[in-house]
Amino acid sequence: MITSRDVARLAGVSQPTVSRALRDDPKVSEATKQRVREAALALGYAPNAIGRALSVGRSTRVGLVVTDLENQFYAHVIAPMHHELERLGYELVLITESSESAPVAEHVTAHGLCGVVLATTTVESIVPVRLRDRGVPFVYFNRTSQSVQADSVTVDPENGVRELLRDAIGKGHRRIGAIFGPRNTSTGEQRENTVRAVLDEHGLALAHRDVRHGPFDFRTGDEGLRELLDRADPPTLVLCGNDVVALGALNAAAELGVGVPDDVSIAGFDDLPTSRWALIRLSTVAYDLDEMSREAARLIVARVEQPDAPQAQPVYPTRYVARATIAAPRA
Amino acid sequence: MITSRDVARLAGVSQPTVSRALRDDPKVSEATKQRVREAALALGYAPNAIGRALSVGRSTRVGLVVTDLENQFYAHVIAPMHHELERLGYELVLITESSESAPVAEHVTAHGLCGVVLATTTVESIVPVRLRDRGVPFVYFNRTSQSVQADSVTVDPENGVRELLRDAIGKGHRRIGAIFGPRNTSTGEQRENTVRAVLDEHGLALAHRDVRHGPFDFRTGDEGLRELLDRADPPTLVLCGNDVVALGALNAAAELGVGVPDDVSIAGFDDLPTSRWALIRLSTVAYDLDEMSREAARLIVARVEQPDAPQAQPVYPTRYVARATIAAPRA
Repeated sequence: MITSRDVARLAGVSQPTVSRALRDDPKVSEATKQRVREAALALGYAPNAIGRALSVGRSTRVGLVVTDLENQFYAHVIAPMHHELERLGYELVLITESSESAPVAEHVTAHGLCGVVLATTTVESIVPVRLRDRGVPFVYFNRTSQSVQADSVTVDPENGVRELLRDAIGKGHRRIGAIFGPRNTSTGEQRENTVRAVLDEHGLALAHRDVRHGPFDFRTGDEGLRELLDRADPPTLVLCGNDVVALGALNAAAELGVGVPDDVSIAGFDDLPTSRWALIRLSTVAYDLDEMSREAARLIVARVEQPDAPQAQPVYPTRYVARATIAAPRA
Repeated sequence: MITSRDVARLAGVSQPTVSRALRDDPKVSEATKQRVREAALALGYAPNAIGRALSVGRSTRVGLVVTDLENQFYAHVIAPMHHELERLGYELVLITESSESAPVAEHVTAHGLCGVVLATTTVESIVPVRLRDRGVPFVYFNRTSQSVQADSVTVDPENGVRELLRDAIGKGHRRIGAIFGPRNTSTGEQRENTVRAVLDEHGLALAHRDVRHGPFDFRTGDEGLRELLDRADPPTLVLCGNDVVALGALNAAAELGVGVPDDVSIAGFDDLPTSRWALIRLSTVAYDLDEMSREAARLIVARVEQPDAPQAQPVYPTRYVARATIAAPRA
């Protein structure tokens, strides 16, 4: 059996350097990594995650629960989370659930995961309770649930929404509509409450007929905008629950021949790379999704390795990014 | 220890039905699945993939090797492949490699994968050789390599490219440029060869100065189009190696204030969902990427379960989808 000691000897480095090099630790130089890899290959050595897991009594596999893998929001979560977990010597396992019921907790047990990042929790979800009951560590990502307290990474929408509405109201918008996310998610609820509170400070309110709710997806924006515009007196600005919803709304406007921002202004939330495209230029609320995804990876690993450490609940600030989809309404 | 027999008894179904229901087999009715899940939950039963793997002497974990998880092409591969593998009782593990060298093969051994789908192979890659030498089953996805024969799912560009060029040349395009994929991938090479062969049939050829090459990403299209247009006599049509490259080109045109298709026509390859957006309407070459991704999942599972079965190399046909980015060139 070839061990890391053999690799270290052949590569002329210390044994811990072998582990670090094979984990692609940035502290190890590229030249050393290359030498270690060549030595490992020459000897047929491979660091064995299963063996390592068994030696400490647990797996190194972290589940990420998402709703829809084709939703582009998740691509920008999965990529940095995957890289950060890999850097820490852990693996990312994707779990999708159309309806978030019992199967998530079953999946975790069935596949021997050491921890879970929950990116789809609804406020009434039983998943956190099941995970707690089974002793599976988890971190809430961009969501929380009242049922169980746990580590979380979330976003504070207030500053971004406040800046956005100051700009839009300053430009003259008074009839404002919204296509919010699901009411049964903390993210949907919090963004909606923030919008309503800030509008209230400006002496404005959303008319009931100018509000729609739906999943955070393209179709919600597409259908929502069509409904809001299908009236004699539509809102002049439509706030969307997130960028993917806003992209659906922008495309609906393009299909209807409705100019953005000439005929209607549209705002998003998330600042996804697509929103920065010259063809899109979505005015939106931004925060550091990449760093937030990496932080979730670090938190779940920390929780797995130190079950009794105090809980961490970092909250990421937001800011408004003015681009091309909000302008003064028609006189 | 709770077994599937206990669950079957409580749910009032047969033991095989329990397995099928928990695997979400479409042959089991939703009502039965619900009953089985409730019984499994009530008893605290979870099907154990690790146990199952140990009982047959192997894991149920399939690796998918991709270049860049943020590239939207992969989202439309990962989602159907993940679902198909799950349906078959297997799991998808993502592996990213900036440079495709030895680490992929190490990763496979380290993480105890039963098989691998290679979606990033370059023609000179040593990965297939390493996998073969280690006895790890693999399937080429949208790529092949001459070094080792194996199962593959690929696309035949010919029909789609032929239809596209017939349309474009019929509209009057004679100066045609291209931003091709990497020359060291079978996909890049084959698409380029097909374009050149079909142009040849029309008595046309690509001028050397009208051709660029690069990775199949947004930046390649963005930079490529700027270079091609930065001349007194640019091509009137730019063929892109894939849709993501074409999206980069479309955005570069928007930033430059160059009208598409008024000033330059642009074509893609893949027909991603984004290409169908009203704001994009990319003329492109389509094939069934969703089915192809599911087929790759089925092939790797079949190979893992029947190592000696004959090789399968299904090839997916292409067709031209005319949208809004190809029009007659300016007189």
